[in-house]
Amino acid sequence: MNIRIGSGIDFHRLEEGRDFWLGGIKVPHTKGAVGYSDADVLLHAICDAMLGAACLGDIGEHFPDTSNEFKGIDSKVLLARTNQIIQKENYRIINIDSSLCLQAPKIKPYVQQMQKTIADILGLTEKDVSIKATTTEKLGFVGREEGVVAYASVLLEKLEENNQ
Amino acid sequence: MNIRIGSGIDFHRLEEGRDFWLGGIKVPHTKGAVGYSDADVLLHAICDAMLGAACLGDIGEHFPDTSNEFKGIDSKVLLARTNQIIQKENYRIINIDSSLCLQAPKIKPYVQQMQKTIADILGLTEKDVSIKATTTEKLGFVGREEGVVAYASVLLEKLEENNQ
Amino acid sequence: MNIRIGSGIDFHRLEEGRDFWLGGIKVPHTKGAVGYSDADVLLHAICDAMLGAACLGDIGEHFPDTSNEFKGIDSKVLLARTNQIIQKENYRIINIDSSLCLQAPKIKPYVQQMQKTIADILGLTEKDVSIKATTTEKLGFVGREEGVVAYASVLLEKLEENNQ
Repeated sequence: MNIRIGSGIDFHRLEEGRDFWLGGIKVPHTKGAVGYSDADVLLHAICDAMLGAACLGDIGEHFPDTSNEFKGIDSKVLLARTNQIIQKENYRIINIDSSLCLQAPKIKPYVQQMQKTIADILGLTEKDVSIKATTTEKLGFVGREEGVVAYASVLLEKLEENNQ
Repeated sequence: MNIRIGSGIDFHRLEEGRDFWLGGIKVPHTKGAVGYSDADVLLHAICDAMLGAACLGDIGEHFPDTSNEFKGIDSKVLLARTNQIIQKENYRIINIDSSLCLQAPKIKPYVQQMQKTIADILGLTEKDVSIKATTTEKLGFVGREEGVVAYASVLLEKLEENNQ
Repeated sequence: MNIRIGSGIDFHRLEEGRDFWLGGIKVPHTKGAVGYSDADVLLHAICDAMLGAACLGDIGEHFPDTSNEFKGIDSKVLLARTNQIIQKENYRIINIDSSLCLQAPKIKPYVQQMQKTIADILGLTEKDVSIKATTTEKLGFVGREEGVVAYASVLLEKLEENNQ
């Protein structure tokens, strides 16, 4: 069976006065995520799910926070590179599903733009990139608005050599 | 490849003296989950996984807590409607796996009834609806019995037009 | 479609002076995981994902912590038994992806050995067993180094009777 499953999870701390990058776009909010790159928790979870399905390590291995190259980097660049990494091994994305856990703000107004942004980078249609959101009902660090968590699931298909 | 992955996660707060709806049945316990509907965290996670796999939004979009229609609603109705939503797009469920994270009570005595309840609504057999449970070893808000979390994974198959 | 999805999640408390078993190997660290068995959170999540995909219950059902048989048991034995359980139902693993959430130590130096250990037990190649790791950016009980969490996803294929 030329199909493989992957799943990713990522966490970032929220701080007042930061830009809040989510799904490749800047979401208006009083807080934003802290990280070595632009701290886009959704794109990071998707990258990790892609790498996991292909069994090619994880995001920390490919884009280490000990390298100056990735300081403040736009995670859309990391997503594009991750796609190149799996394509080199003849993998193609079937579909992506993801969930954002955050207490605020409501991200629904931005979901379609996030889907388009991610689909364009990965050469997919928007129907292949699902983004869902939920609060944690004020429970835990997400509920206290100290952090944000993203989960992503992906199916990859391995292309035959002669199908490329 | 006519197959798609989806995953859902849902959180609800626990309070003394509430009914505790889980997997479509009422579980005897001193606490129950708080929510706009009957707060059935397992059915909500399954709905979200189904919608995510089909890339048709999320449970908050289809059944908003701003609508009187869904106040106190039985989540089995939401599950049935979610199934109609994905069937309209020619999707069929291959299988569901799920995990409940809660410190108490032991839900094992109720799992088979939950499986049957969910399978009946979705037109599946009980062998296609897996429900697992774990404590968090007293860690975090689940461990303090302040809340309950459910994870669900699903595979959908897209039926050809002439297979309907 | 003879394919099924499963996902597992497991939690263990960390304590000073314990052995830290992860992915079947002993990881050098000042803390280790507490549990009835050797508390290998990664192997437990993988077992649960396998059982969930096959809809054959969960790890607590097959290896109960009320049985002396499983006190202090090496979780590699549980993984091997889980594999026998699903093989008896003609299931074969397509691939496994997993994520470890822990604040410390860095587990990257041990990942390859974990992959080989798990693959050998399950009769897979290392390319079929992905292990990723992330911190929680010091958030929550994982961030406070009170606990460790593992997530695992798996695809199973059901073999035809005459393929065995």
